[in-house]
Amino acid sequence: MVVTMRRSAQADDVARVVSTIEVSGGTARLSRTGSAAVIGVLGEGVGITPEALVSLPGVERVTAVDKSYRLAHRLFRPEGSVVAIGDVPVGGNGLVLMAGPCAVESEAQLLAAAQGVREGGAHILRGGAFKPRTSPYSFQGLGREGLRLLAAARAATGMPVVTEVMEPSEVEAVAEAADCLQVGARNMQNTPLLRAVGQSDRPVLLKRGLAATVDEWLQAAEYILAQGNERVILCERGLRGFDGHTRFLLDVSAVPVARRLTHLPIIVDPSHAAGDRELVPALARAAIAAGADGLIVEVHPTPDTALSDGPQALTPTAFAHLVEEVSAVGAALGRPLHQA
Amino acid sequence: MVVTMRRSAQADDVARVVSTIEVSGGTARLSRTGSAAVIGVLGEGVGITPEALVSLPGVERVTAVDKSYRLAHRLFRPEGSVVAIGDVPVGGNGLVLMAGPCAVESEAQLLAAAQGVREGGAHILRGGAFKPRTSPYSFQGLGREGLRLLAAARAATGMPVVTEVMEPSEVEAVAEAADCLQVGARNMQNTPLLRAVGQSDRPVLLKRGLAATVDEWLQAAEYILAQGNERVILCERGLRGFDGHTRFLLDVSAVPVARRLTHLPIIVDPSHAAGDRELVPALARAAIAAGADGLIVEVHPTPDTALSDGPQALTPTAFAHLVEEVSAVGAALGRPLHQA
Amino acid sequence: MVVTMRRSAQADDVARVVSTIEVSGGTARLSRTGSAAVIGVLGEGVGITPEALVSLPGVERVTAVDKSYRLAHRLFRPEGSVVAIGDVPVGGNGLVLMAGPCAVESEAQLLAAAQGVREGGAHILRGGAFKPRTSPYSFQGLGREGLRLLAAARAATGMPVVTEVMEPSEVEAVAEAADCLQVGARNMQNTPLLRAVGQSDRPVLLKRGLAATVDEWLQAAEYILAQGNERVILCERGLRGFDGHTRFLLDVSAVPVARRLTHLPIIVDPSHAAGDRELVPALARAAIAAGADGLIVEVHPTPDTALSDGPQALTPTAFAHLVEEVSAVGAALGRPLHQA
Amino acid sequence: MVVTMRRSAQADDVARVVSTIEVSGGTARLSRTGSAAVIGVLGEGVGITPEALVSLPGVERVTAVDKSYRLAHRLFRPEGSVVAIGDVPVGGNGLVLMAGPCAVESEAQLLAAAQGVREGGAHILRGGAFKPRTSPYSFQGLGREGLRLLAAARAATGMPVVTEVMEPSEVEAVAEAADCLQVGARNMQNTPLLRAVGQSDRPVLLKRGLAATVDEWLQAAEYILAQGNERVILCERGLRGFDGHTRFLLDVSAVPVARRLTHLPIIVDPSHAAGDRELVPALARAAIAAGADGLIVEVHPTPDTALSDGPQALTPTAFAHLVEEVSAVGAALGRPLHQA
Repeated sequence: MVVTMRRSAQADDVARVVSTIEVSGGTARLSRTGSAAVIGVLGEGVGITPEALVSLPGVERVTAVDKSYRLAHRLFRPEGSVVAIGDVPVGGNGLVLMAGPCAVESEAQLLAAAQGVREGGAHILRGGAFKPRTSPYSFQGLGREGLRLLAAARAATGMPVVTEVMEPSEVEAVAEAADCLQVGARNMQNTPLLRAVGQSDRPVLLKRGLAATVDEWLQAAEYILAQGNERVILCERGLRGFDGHTRFLLDVSAVPVARRLTHLPIIVDPSHAAGDRELVPALARAAIAAGADGLIVEVHPTPDTALSDGPQALTPTAFAHLVEEVSAVGAALGRPLHQA
Repeated sequence: MVVTMRRSAQADDVARVVSTIEVSGGTARLSRTGSAAVIGVLGEGVGITPEALVSLPGVERVTAVDKSYRLAHRLFRPEGSVVAIGDVPVGGNGLVLMAGPCAVESEAQLLAAAQGVREGGAHILRGGAFKPRTSPYSFQGLGREGLRLLAAARAATGMPVVTEVMEPSEVEAVAEAADCLQVGARNMQNTPLLRAVGQSDRPVLLKRGLAATVDEWLQAAEYILAQGNERVILCERGLRGFDGHTRFLLDVSAVPVARRLTHLPIIVDPSHAAGDRELVPALARAAIAAGADGLIVEVHPTPDTALSDGPQALTPTAFAHLVEEVSAVGAALGRPLHQA
Repeated sequence: MVVTMRRSAQADDVARVVSTIEVSGGTARLSRTGSAAVIGVLGEGVGITPEALVSLPGVERVTAVDKSYRLAHRLFRPEGSVVAIGDVPVGGNGLVLMAGPCAVESEAQLLAAAQGVREGGAHILRGGAFKPRTSPYSFQGLGREGLRLLAAARAATGMPVVTEVMEPSEVEAVAEAADCLQVGARNMQNTPLLRAVGQSDRPVLLKRGLAATVDEWLQAAEYILAQGNERVILCERGLRGFDGHTRFLLDVSAVPVARRLTHLPIIVDPSHAAGDRELVPALARAAIAAGADGLIVEVHPTPDTALSDGPQALTPTAFAHLVEEVSAVGAALGRPLHQA
Repeated sequence: MVVTMRRSAQADDVARVVSTIEVSGGTARLSRTGSAAVIGVLGEGVGITPEALVSLPGVERVTAVDKSYRLAHRLFRPEGSVVAIGDVPVGGNGLVLMAGPCAVESEAQLLAAAQGVREGGAHILRGGAFKPRTSPYSFQGLGREGLRLLAAARAATGMPVVTEVMEPSEVEAVAEAADCLQVGARNMQNTPLLRAVGQSDRPVLLKRGLAATVDEWLQAAEYILAQGNERVILCERGLRGFDGHTRFLLDVSAVPVARRLTHLPIIVDPSHAAGDRELVPALARAAIAAGADGLIVEVHPTPDTALSDGPQALTPTAFAHLVEEVSAVGAALGRPLHQA
């Protein structure tokens, strides 16, 4: 259930609703939308009814929502959430660009990439230290050393950093080096990991699993939210398809579908979806036109030597061109690039 | 094989290549790209080799292409084809909008729809007289009477008309009433129908099957082209997916993928993909941003009373708003709406 | 609606129900299950209610069924249908094997294949005269000449013949040469073709489309049944999948799922699903174990020279081995091979 | 590379090959197939060539294999692996049945289930203590208390136990309570977990991800094998499909496909695939007929009160009936149930 208070409600009206819920064995989660308070009720089968709540002073209405996710529900924050990564707001009106190499390979490679994407217009640096590779014999990332290089790149460029975390025991180390924790598509339903990042104070970028429904994705987000971390950003990155011309099948309709269901910001990764750098700009433009709040794009100073996913990486020059295009599309729809 | 002539080649150089191919038992198909002639060679295992052709005067190069489609291959017309429906060019720089009701229901409904979409900015009227319905107990369209109403709407509004044809024996009747023959997704591999429309002098709108690869789609186009009808327009309309929030899964990546492989124009149907009118504008914008040459959109004067697919039909007002948005996106990318 | 009569109902009770339905503008379709009559009611929104029918003498119950298919509904013939191809019953307790080459190539090839599969244990000969090929440049079958060869093979071996028909105008010619008309997966929703075979007096083998739901498949069958042809056999042949090790993804669960929903017999084509002869026996055994009423298997006297789908064709020797295995599985489950 | 030694090779021939590999910087992994030794070579780009190895005494041949998995490759153990869970061999000729409740709910429930499945013919008890649920508000399992109950059920019934482990930090605790560690479909590419179970001395049941290719599944197995744990059992459990009549789409062809590629035993979970207890027996029979080495089946003493996945759980009586059927199918194909 979600309890929406009247705008005229007083602080003690809100407090009364919260205490009524908690006395009954439920958990109340308070948010504010514009000038009105909204209270989400957690807890299965608690001894509290909509009728009891709606009769309390200051309550405007009580809405039943799908029981499988609640805090992620659009109703809980109808105007949409803005989640800051470092000082960059994701969500809201401006568009945000995250870019960088698939994997951190060396200090020189990372700095060249960081410099390149910043000049091209990126707000946030991405780069993998821990890499979830299909084969155990592929490059698995530099691990902790990669984290150190990311922290150094952040210091050198001033850009906030997003990087993947793959197991609960590494959350703390990753959170130290990075401004945002990425949970990869392969781990979308790794519930111990979701709980662990839910207990972190870093925002979380949650990629959609490659055969996950939008509802399953929102329930995965709910695992994080239910731990108290309200800062979740969703990322669509392509589904398993059957046509070999692309690596995955980008589901752009997930953007307006998820927008309708949840208040969380939604970005798109055109690089993994395409698996082919020639196709990345078209998918990037489509994502922004469909209403995404931003992009995460793979850029490598020398894609042909990349240790991971080179074929889908853009050069910094190609990235700068992509930024021009998505900037034009965003501007045409009233959504300019975020200005630092 | 595709033979590309030098720009300096003379008419008799071209004629010599054509006759060399035909003497060997093959079929030569001539096209022009800019100032250079291109000759496609049809016929399996004919007694002619690339070496023999490349040594002829005026030949610049001979390129082997995927044997399963040739006339559809981008190499055959590298600058891209423009296919006119009535006097509206599809392909090229301008964007084209086709719109109208899913099914023709009555004269009043069709005229209201036609008027509405024309005012909203559509160039071409769509409407189904023969409807391929999943259940035999659903409304199957008005048939020949529907064709008559479409011809009347064309006369009344001056808009060219596109409508579906479902069997070879109806091609002639449909071609009389309509300016463009649509082959639906369910019939993408109905080869007798493909051959029949290939023998018509009307352009053909070929929808992609709901689980067809891009290569299968181009091979279906090749059936039409191989009959001598060069005027094929491709239409992506969504794949079978697993998420119930949309009716089909729009594959926007098919636009740049097909663009790279073929010279044929490519449009997108966001309405059948979405199955939900709230989602149609986002998909329409994404399609244009991905590089589509136009859209085909379902619009009904009173969607709630529609006999077919009402939930995905836009009102004329909503359509006009969609046109504003896609026009802005197109303009931002240097592709304005076609101006009559 | 389906009206089930009491076993004690008299002929004039049944006649009264039928006339009541027809007077109200509906169509009554009578079948018998064991000793009780069952009457299906067709016609949307006719002026007749379940209440009116259930009050008539001799009526045991009136059941509302999914409106999109009715005659195909299990309720309409709870004990299951048996459809004879020539003198071979499909459905019922015995298992039926159809086998032969993908395409009819020559008299010698067809006779060798027919001889081979008959010796191996097949009951029915399959072979394509009209071939729906993905590329227009692939072998398209011998057409009418292929039909002539099939009729000759039938005469020579005494085996009934099943072959594909691809357009309404060929139904008559195919029905003359063959004992059963096959509608291919690519034509599952080619409604003019479904109607045309529905007006034939030949049984119809209806393959499931490669991305069709079971409900869509049953609605396609309903198109045929609604024309008055009650002799439809369903055939599962694999869905579009994403794993390149097989050509399609065999959905064995379709067998028990369809069994529950419909009274029509269900067979399986393991050859097109596998696309690889090494995998065919395992899929054939699985299909029978899942409850299929039979198989349709591609067998070629010399698979390596086949003009179509050679990689999935078995030799006659391999087919005989497959028959031994499926015979053992069938016997273990109380379903022996049909004995002529 | 895989080095196959001659049968006549001596121990010091084998030792020489191993040391040659290791001196060059590679890792040698020795196995025996019948009377011949087989040596797998790990290590990318090591300074050793097939030519150098094939010239060593006692070497019969050196085979290049797909670089993404090697230890899992069929060539490495051509006769197939047998992996014991407790004293029950999985793989080899006999069929093995694992059964029990989806989730451990209480001592009484677990003991009733264990008793029931043992009487029905199961060899191994399954039951979840840690449950990966889609929604955070669904029952998540009893955790450590569930492990305690499983250990007690093992002691009471003598049946070996298989249960899921969801994070590296729980591997040790689960390995104490259970005879086999299950890695669930959602965690198939959770590489830290794969590495952790690879360092355990317990066999591992590795479920296929719901959109994983067979190659990706084998590469996931390779993560475990590469850590030194050779005891991996593969489990197919259904793919994401589009037809709502089943929960997932069972890919029976994965059984013969994987059999050809790998020596690891393969079992099937018909319960999660079906999601509907009426369909479970047909899928179970199909799996055995396709060549699976066994089944893992959900059985609950009172399915209607189950806290998780009740609709797909069989009663003990229905399970006993399923065992009779699969036993008959197995026997018909020369694969009897394992006899303790």
